[in-house]
Amino acid sequence: MDEMKMPSGEDSLISRYFRPIATDAGAFNLVDDAAILQASGDDIVVTTDAIVEGVHFLSDDPPDNVARKALRVNLSDLAAKGATPAGFVLTLALRTKDEAWLKPFAQALGEDAAHFGCPLLGGDTVSTPGPLMISITAFGRVPAGKMVHRSGAKPGDRVVVTGTIGDAALGLDILRGGAATIALADDAGPKQMLVARYRLPQPRNALVMAIRDYASAAMDVSDGLAGDLAKLCAASGLSAVVDAPSIPLSAAAATLLARGAVGIEAIVSGGDDYEILCAIPEGSFEAFAQRAGVAGVAVTSIGTVIAGTSAPKFLDAQGREIALPRLSYSHF
Amino acid sequence: MDEMKMPSGEDSLISRYFRPIATDAGAFNLVDDAAILQASGDDIVVTTDAIVEGVHFLSDDPPDNVARKALRVNLSDLAAKGATPAGFVLTLALRTKDEAWLKPFAQALGEDAAHFGCPLLGGDTVSTPGPLMISITAFGRVPAGKMVHRSGAKPGDRVVVTGTIGDAALGLDILRGGAATIALADDAGPKQMLVARYRLPQPRNALVMAIRDYASAAMDVSDGLAGDLAKLCAASGLSAVVDAPSIPLSAAAATLLARGAVGIEAIVSGGDDYEILCAIPEGSFEAFAQRAGVAGVAVTSIGTVIAGTSAPKFLDAQGREIALPRLSYSHF
Repeated sequence: MDEMKMPSGEDSLISRYFRPIATDAGAFNLVDDAAILQASGDDIVVTTDAIVEGVHFLSDDPPDNVARKALRVNLSDLAAKGATPAGFVLTLALRTKDEAWLKPFAQALGEDAAHFGCPLLGGDTVSTPGPLMISITAFGRVPAGKMVHRSGAKPGDRVVVTGTIGDAALGLDILRGGAATIALADDAGPKQMLVARYRLPQPRNALVMAIRDYASAAMDVSDGLAGDLAKLCAASGLSAVVDAPSIPLSAAAATLLARGAVGIEAIVSGGDDYEILCAIPEGSFEAFAQRAGVAGVAVTSIGTVIAGTSAPKFLDAQGREIALPRLSYSHF
Repeated sequence: MDEMKMPSGEDSLISRYFRPIATDAGAFNLVDDAAILQASGDDIVVTTDAIVEGVHFLSDDPPDNVARKALRVNLSDLAAKGATPAGFVLTLALRTKDEAWLKPFAQALGEDAAHFGCPLLGGDTVSTPGPLMISITAFGRVPAGKMVHRSGAKPGDRVVVTGTIGDAALGLDILRGGAATIALADDAGPKQMLVARYRLPQPRNALVMAIRDYASAAMDVSDGLAGDLAKLCAASGLSAVVDAPSIPLSAAAATLLARGAVGIEAIVSGGDDYEILCAIPEGSFEAFAQRAGVAGVAVTSIGTVIAGTSAPKFLDAQGREIALPRLSYSHF
């Protein structure tokens, strides 16, 4: 670890912005070459996700949103694994030392770190002639052997998602001036909501204990519900059938669907949801839903895990299979 | 974690190259969303270092060397902290899926991971329009509370370095056609050795147990001996005096110095050494040197930690202070 400095004497700049948010004892004020993570008998869950300017966020996205998104996509993975956040390290590839960008970036990162109980432990800052890139490796804790896997679903388990599906992809479509923009021309509120869902994921860490206690398999929905469900099923050697009208939609997404601006196949193959997709044994669903209610997270049963190895089927209100040209990450 | 895939259906490509080297049980064959690191009662030491094409390595550096360098700069940090390697996660930002590059990259990474006992646990692969970037977060284990810090040196401690200093920076100078190239025009062997020292760090992980047992403070030399010693001293609230003629040089570096192609000030401010710099109590130096000999790592006492807060002084054979225009990372 290079004490989060730029190669040419910018130690002071970085320390000014990042040292104040590195409050965990194991971060050693970012003046050592490594950090300490105490496991205290737990398993350490490790996940890493990077976001790249122009690919995962837009050049004019506000820096505070970029910071939160970089951390939250990792927090979302920890939540899906039933792991409580324990800390993270940050690699920041920057073109210039742009204080007007770094200051709100670091401040928002610190706020989210505090809010989610996931302290900054260290990092590395490098210069690049290319796009900004933020790579975060995040750590969580689970009691030994208790990580929730992508595999482990059983036939008969409910297929459950948190929150609403498709909003983020619609938000990106709006930022790009796509079909959703036109269909919502006069509705500033819904447009803003959808854009906010793209820019600022809401990781479901409040649901961690319920996931750990009840889910037979779980992952977060980052590349599109259809594709991610296919992965979860494949990991368990199973298939699933989904009742598409049960898929939870925001009012804005439902409006766009009703107006014909987008189809359900786009909703379920759009990415960036950062909701949790999990398999819950039938007999546990009520208890799980109750715990989710207490945690303030909406959960919806959208289908059933079944035997078989074909891709999960999405059925419409008439029980007909919906054709899905692409499973994942189409962003329309 | 996105199972090390590219955003558009390149799962199979990545799994083909990286799954075979992710042999640790905690990596779950790279098919889960996170990895497990078992602490087994130890502290987990976390370090992260990224390397960027055109900044930390050159576009035409062989991909196997790039892979090894990306891992080894992190292994070097673990060694300096007295931590035994436990695993790593990889973020790879690629412009294209270039199999001719990825195949030797992954193979070399796997070989180094096996050699140093530091298994690949997971990662993320993203597309970028910019330079290649490899960011690694590496984990090590130390008995609780036993990490060796950058601080902790005491007045009277020996200043000790491993290996030889300055070779890597001279190697980079040669790749860039600098003064060292001309001075070694007819000496292919030394030129190759210096370039190899730039491209392929030799982390001193064999010395981990001796560092843990004897060093009062340690860090790796990545940005230049002078600057890194200044940081180690500052962390301890102390200064140091170094006998420059004692600094261990390779025969090639000594030749370049003798021919006047470079000065000692360039040697001690060049970067990329990835040797260990540590403070060893006077009474322990012989035992430390003996252990180092058994481990096959050369160690050299080059000076003494002293009270004071000024930058460490480098003295020539006549005891005169050597002026150091830049402390770190000048690459000449």
